[in-house]
Amino acid sequence: MGPIKKKVTVREQAILAKQAAKHVAVLSTEEKNEALYRLASTLETHAEMLLEENEKDLKNGRKQELNNAFLDRLALSKERIAQFTDGLRQVAELEDPVGKVMMDSRLDNGLKITKISVPLGVIGMIYEARPNVTVDAAGLALKAGNAIVLKGGSSAIHTNKAIVSVMHKALMETNIPKEAVQLIESTNREASQQLFTMKEHIDVLIPRGGAGLINTVASNATVPVLETGIGNCHLYIDAEADLEKTLSILVNGKTSRPAVCNAIETVLVHEKWLAEHHEALARTFSVHSITVHADEAALEVVPNAVAAVEEDWANEYLNLHIAIKVVKDVDEAIAHIEQYGTKHSEAILTENEYTAQHFMKFVDASAIYHNASTRFTDGGALGLGAEIGISTQKLHARGPMGLPALTTYKYIMTGDGQIRS
Amino acid sequence: MGPIKKKVTVREQAILAKQAAKHVAVLSTEEKNEALYRLASTLETHAEMLLEENEKDLKNGRKQELNNAFLDRLALSKERIAQFTDGLRQVAELEDPVGKVMMDSRLDNGLKITKISVPLGVIGMIYEARPNVTVDAAGLALKAGNAIVLKGGSSAIHTNKAIVSVMHKALMETNIPKEAVQLIESTNREASQQLFTMKEHIDVLIPRGGAGLINTVASNATVPVLETGIGNCHLYIDAEADLEKTLSILVNGKTSRPAVCNAIETVLVHEKWLAEHHEALARTFSVHSITVHADEAALEVVPNAVAAVEEDWANEYLNLHIAIKVVKDVDEAIAHIEQYGTKHSEAILTENEYTAQHFMKFVDASAIYHNASTRFTDGGALGLGAEIGISTQKLHARGPMGLPALTTYKYIMTGDGQIRS
Repeated sequence: MGPIKKKVTVREQAILAKQAAKHVAVLSTEEKNEALYRLASTLETHAEMLLEENEKDLKNGRKQELNNAFLDRLALSKERIAQFTDGLRQVAELEDPVGKVMMDSRLDNGLKITKISVPLGVIGMIYEARPNVTVDAAGLALKAGNAIVLKGGSSAIHTNKAIVSVMHKALMETNIPKEAVQLIESTNREASQQLFTMKEHIDVLIPRGGAGLINTVASNATVPVLETGIGNCHLYIDAEADLEKTLSILVNGKTSRPAVCNAIETVLVHEKWLAEHHEALARTFSVHSITVHADEAALEVVPNAVAAVEEDWANEYLNLHIAIKVVKDVDEAIAHIEQYGTKHSEAILTENEYTAQHFMKFVDASAIYHNASTRFTDGGALGLGAEIGISTQKLHARGPMGLPALTTYKYIMTGDGQIRS
Repeated sequence: MGPIKKKVTVREQAILAKQAAKHVAVLSTEEKNEALYRLASTLETHAEMLLEENEKDLKNGRKQELNNAFLDRLALSKERIAQFTDGLRQVAELEDPVGKVMMDSRLDNGLKITKISVPLGVIGMIYEARPNVTVDAAGLALKAGNAIVLKGGSSAIHTNKAIVSVMHKALMETNIPKEAVQLIESTNREASQQLFTMKEHIDVLIPRGGAGLINTVASNATVPVLETGIGNCHLYIDAEADLEKTLSILVNGKTSRPAVCNAIETVLVHEKWLAEHHEALARTFSVHSITVHADEAALEVVPNAVAAVEEDWANEYLNLHIAIKVVKDVDEAIAHIEQYGTKHSEAILTENEYTAQHFMKFVDASAIYHNASTRFTDGGALGLGAEIGISTQKLHARGPMGLPALTTYKYIMTGDGQIRS
């Protein structure tokens, strides 16, 4: 574990990252890609060590009686290591987002104006148990010419230390200074809170994890924040929704991976559709072991449903529970989504093109679906490349945030003495 | 002053704006442009009334012994009214930033993906004395499909109430609901502070004014902020800078409009250049009545200079004072800019292309100039169209913020039953 320096303060780490960022910013695409390949191969040759260190975290987790879902997110395996090393190679294959000429013009007085994409600088990544975020985030940050300060969950600290020590070892054989990847080793809360206000050294904070983590960062940070991934996603089943598509998309949206942010949490169903199809709907819930929290109208036709309370409409269950509310038209659905949605992914199922257009026009969210599953909101699934998170805010980047979200731009003006009259 | 509702709380105003924003968001370009022309002509026909109300503010200002520069910013005139009504018509002529297809693709499974620009929603504008901001900001916000909540300085309250009452009168004859333009009439600080945390109703806050105002908003708001306009701009005079260009750009940058954010505040001069040209430089300072705050080395060769103290390096003078520091090379200049700059506009004067490239690569700012005046950092001057401010931050928008900065985007996915495998 040699290369990680001990007893460095969080502020010192941020300063080291800022200095390293200047070097990463001006590297060529080839230099960055070479480093990503080197990271991948070095992580692979150290797989055994990573698994051993991960086992320490798992043992501690079991001792603390963390639940199985949590331990599953924490666990590494040969396959999971291969996933993130393949991910690094895929990022190497992506187009370099830095140095793109976004505008190029010349004023009448001869002043040349070029708008060019540049790295953000230092990215502060605050996340929870998943060790793959350590690798994925570092890879994306470096490819976009940035340095990164990582603050993972304390339960994954042995794994993260091991991963970062291997990454440092790999970077020492590349043109990226190893200081460009900083891991905050302290497991106390103050360590991440120090990052919240380091505006001089950190250019953006990206919190990734549960609503608690994200809201804590968003309400306390003075460093700009890219909020990610709280998804209270709705499926609106219109009066004119096709039965077969509806059941298939509902099952896919709720059950294919219930713990992710693009899973369906609430069904808004048109009263006419429900009157006609409630038996098929109820059967689907039952076959897939979905626990239904129903409003008064739905309670009457969905057997075994429990009565929904106010909190259900805002709840991101992340499991096989679902809320259902009966609405009289698309506008009631839109109003409900406006009140309770998190601007992540919202879907309408209807064969009526006009109703679909109306929904897509008036719903305010990063991703809106007509007759398709919300589960597609993902950089990879949408063909947008690897992502560092899914933004639920409106500024800078919305939806899946790939490499361009990790850049900004500057205007370069070249003249021969021009002054403004 | 009929149309302005009395006794409405700030929160109620924000809610009204949010509701109105939904209507503005879906208007056609023609409807929005028609409204802008109507605003311009109605403001013109009410010019006398605007001047009368402005006189009340000026009278109060004189009574409170506000300084002349402040009173000048506050004052309306026929010409200034014509400037902002012309501005509205120019905004009408600009391309509509809403509804632009930014990406259009189809997955192998047939799912169609469209990325389309949409309005931000409600913009909160917090500013100081200049009444033209009331008109300029409203025009830009509406053209980009947004509603706006305006909080101007208390010293301009009569003028702003008059302008907004005329704008409401005009909007009543258009398809834009008048609630899309809200003026907060309360002149106490809590009124604007309420806007800081209204995340459900306000999508972005844009503070425009002095450093005090901008820093207050940036450090207290939980609503996302677009920081604007603090400009501690540097002019680096390299060893190989041309004398004539240097003096002309220095004079233009410092004296053509000292109170604006793109004016030069600090000169960093290479020791070799200074040794050769200090007499010409000192003469220029003297001829243009520029007060020089010099470091030790410059003090020796600039007559009548005062000794610079630490605060001078960070000071945005906004008047005919300037700081000067002697450096031994371009890297010392870059390091100084990194320490004291505000990431607004930075210039290098040199005939050495390599040195210029080095400066432009390593200086982190929204606008970087080689052999040209920093005074060009302005949406109009750079041919980027009217601007709502100059962003000094890295996320979302950097440099002059025109109409596109007032939009975000959403992904629209259209399918026929696609689910994710």
